[in-house]
Amino acid sequence: MSTTPTASQRLAELGIQLPPVAVPAAADVAFARRGDLVFLSGHIAKREGEVWKGQLGLDMQTEEGQAAARAVAIDLLGTLAAALDGDLERVRRIVKLTSLVNSTPTYTDHHLVTNGASNLMGQVFGERGAHARAAFGVAQLPLGACVEIEMVAEVR
Amino acid sequence: MSTTPTASQRLAELGIQLPPVAVPAAADVAFARRGDLVFLSGHIAKREGEVWKGQLGLDMQTEEGQAAARAVAIDLLGTLAAALDGDLERVRRIVKLTSLVNSTPTYTDHHLVTNGASNLMGQVFGERGAHARAAFGVAQLPLGACVEIEMVAEVR
Amino acid sequence: MSTTPTASQRLAELGIQLPPVAVPAAADVAFARRGDLVFLSGHIAKREGEVWKGQLGLDMQTEEGQAAARAVAIDLLGTLAAALDGDLERVRRIVKLTSLVNSTPTYTDHHLVTNGASNLMGQVFGERGAHARAAFGVAQLPLGACVEIEMVAEVR
Repeated sequence: MSTTPTASQRLAELGIQLPPVAVPAAADVAFARRGDLVFLSGHIAKREGEVWKGQLGLDMQTEEGQAAARAVAIDLLGTLAAALDGDLERVRRIVKLTSLVNSTPTYTDHHLVTNGASNLMGQVFGERGAHARAAFGVAQLPLGACVEIEMVAEVR
Repeated sequence: MSTTPTASQRLAELGIQLPPVAVPAAADVAFARRGDLVFLSGHIAKREGEVWKGQLGLDMQTEEGQAAARAVAIDLLGTLAAALDGDLERVRRIVKLTSLVNSTPTYTDHHLVTNGASNLMGQVFGERGAHARAAFGVAQLPLGACVEIEMVAEVR
Repeated sequence: MSTTPTASQRLAELGIQLPPVAVPAAADVAFARRGDLVFLSGHIAKREGEVWKGQLGLDMQTEEGQAAARAVAIDLLGTLAAALDGDLERVRRIVKLTSLVNSTPTYTDHHLVTNGASNLMGQVFGERGAHARAAFGVAQLPLGACVEIEMVAEVR
């Protein structure tokens, strides 16, 4: 008998409640599934329902950026749950995160910011949460958001 | 009997003629297919055969950026058609667009620019055109282009 | 009887010795395989074991950027070999490269920089090395690296 907690149990332990899936504005949608891969749109950071604005190296420190990346990860999990009729146990693997960090030309800790999202995936999914990743600094993000992350997951 | 117009019919209604596939310069190619997924290279915006140069927030407004994104989408469809021996009815789903908008550090409407491409996919493919998406601002693009978009499509 | 050299033979001819796979710092890993696709994390440029720092258009010329991109490609091949128990003959296709070039807002030769990686894939894999690609300029990269490249490969 396995005592490994489920993803839902881990989320509850972490005190995280998943949001409903975001409603997109254009012909784009929050996720597209084909076969056993789910491609999730880039999700921008939000705080209390508002866009979490800021630029690393200008008006935001790494620690706040990590909190924003973690918030994006929670929203991504909300979308992923919606894609799976609410059942995150159907996640086989978090395959890939691409993390776009709104940063000045001199800020170089995008990887540390992104750890805010990566670590949550590890906490929630254990080994299934170990993912390939790219993190880099972008000139600016939609609506002035500080972080945007997109994801690919393998599901069943 | 279905009266849903085909992708080709919709393109004709929109007055759009697809270009031939672009010839790449290096070991990269315009698309790579594996199984039922086609990965299309980043296509830069062109106007009358020349690179469509500009930077949002500097010397280009959102509306022109949308026109450029729509032009990229047409070129992407040209490449996708070439990957399918000209038959866009073999497109099952536009899975993902990644839109790189050449923009200043203060411009924040990358999502509106990108709608120029997303909306065309919806017009041409209907529900099959609903796609996951990421849009963000980059410091600069090859040859000074204002927009570059890459795409993943599911085909049969 | 085929006289086409194997990927390993080509690497030897080029005098290239593959590095061991890099050890990631967070919950992210150097690659994630699902089915016959391997997603490789963004690898930043290194030189003699240190981060290869620089920004194109500021303190680095295109030629040096190409050398850095080639160095990243070698590291990507090292990771890919590790994903395949050392056997690069199991590579069916290099599917996609995404190349992030650390550059100023006025530098526009990201595609030439990226050719340093693309050309190596062609040299090592021949037709199997022809890949879809996106290359663009980013505001900055983790640890100040000049180039970061991620990759998708189809394997058996």
